Amino acid sequence: MPRVSQDHLEARRRQILDGARACFARHGYEGATVRRLEEATGLSRGAIFHHFRDKESLFLALAEDDALRMAEVVAEQGLVQVMRDLLAGRKDDNDDEHPADWLGTRLEVSRRLRTDPDFRARWAERSEQLTKATQDRLRRQREAGNLRDDVSVEVLSDFLELVLEGLVSHLAMGLPADDLGPVLDLVEETVRRHRRNEC
Amino acid sequence: MPRVSQDHLEARRRQILDGARACFARHGYEGATVRRLEEATGLSRGAIFHHFRDKESLFLALAEDDALRMAEVVAEQGLVQVMRDLLAGRKDDNDDEHPADWLGTRLEVSRRLRTDPDFRARWAERSEQLTKATQDRLRRQREAGNLRDDVSVEVLSDFLELVLEGLVSHLAMGLPADDLGPVLDLVEETVRRHRRNEC
Repeated sequence: MPRVSQDHLEARRRQILDGARACFARHGYEGATVRRLEEATGLSRGAIFHHFRDKESLFLALAEDDALRMAEVVAEQGLVQVMRDLLAGRKDDNDDEHPADWLGTRLEVSRRLRTDPDFRARWAERSEQLTKATQDRLRRQREAGNLRDDVSVEVLSDFLELVLEGLVSHLAMGLPADDLGPVLDLVEETVRRHRRNEC
Repeated sequence: MPRVSQDHLEARRRQILDGARACFARHGYEGATVRRLEEATGLSRGAIFHHFRDKESLFLALAEDDALRMAEVVAEQGLVQVMRDLLAGRKDDNDDEHPADWLGTRLEVSRRLRTDPDFRARWAERSEQLTKATQDRLRRQREAGNLRDDVSVEVLSDFLELVLEGLVSHLAMGLPADDLGPVLDLVEETVRRHRRNEC
């Protein structure tokens, strides 16, 4: 396939994903009708389903896209930084990363995981990327002497992911979040090596 | 009103709430049709809506009922114990407290908070009970010298509630939870006073 065509395909795919992300976030999975997806993406159903087999495949691609971007940030800056970014970005709907829409996707993932065993199976492999990125980073931090060493990397990783899930749920519910900065400080301190002068 | 009649009303109300809890958990708010609510409660729509004005009122009563029971456990045993109970009870669908159904209610609350501003306003006052119960207990623990004193009760309470939200979300999604015991140990240790011999 010629290079120009590949670029075009990728741009079109990105256009569909961005529009669909906003649409799923606003209307939920069931509420995101084909007509609404057409409006949100500015493309015909023919064009949309040329790139994605069906609505389910589109939603999975979207959720996977979000999870990959998150794993990249985790690898570079850690999961606590992902949480800080979520907190800082939640009011800015025009942000390039669409944090509000990202939250909507994530909550739709949560809801479908609960009600749809097939979806759960398809999602399981995708969600492992985040855990792997988190544990890899924690191991590097431990080698650098920055991590507490009385708790395993697996437990620390599970702890951070649990707090992330809580934060996503909290933000997605539109609950007050102005005071959560110090909570994330506490979370970060919990995984770090305790300093001598605290004793 | 004669006593016997009040007892009868309360028993009937309980019967409706228990049936509706299972129904909402299984089908979601929108999916819990009047016909399904009749099946789940074993009562006619006339009997159900004699006790609750409409489906919205029934759902709010249910969510409030769950929040109150949770606040009671928090007052006596703390929020970490609520989380341990959730973890221990998740596999036992026949448990008296219906932990699995309780999770379903809670996730429906989350979803509606996100999509329905009116519901958000009605829910806000109800959810304060849990925060108050948590902070009251933390203050008593601080007075007893069991709590770390370098972080405010408000931040510790927000931290615990955030982890609870994460746990609820995690369990409601049906994700693996066998390894979360040590994570809750870590959470509990984080709010407690650090012991000398850790230095």
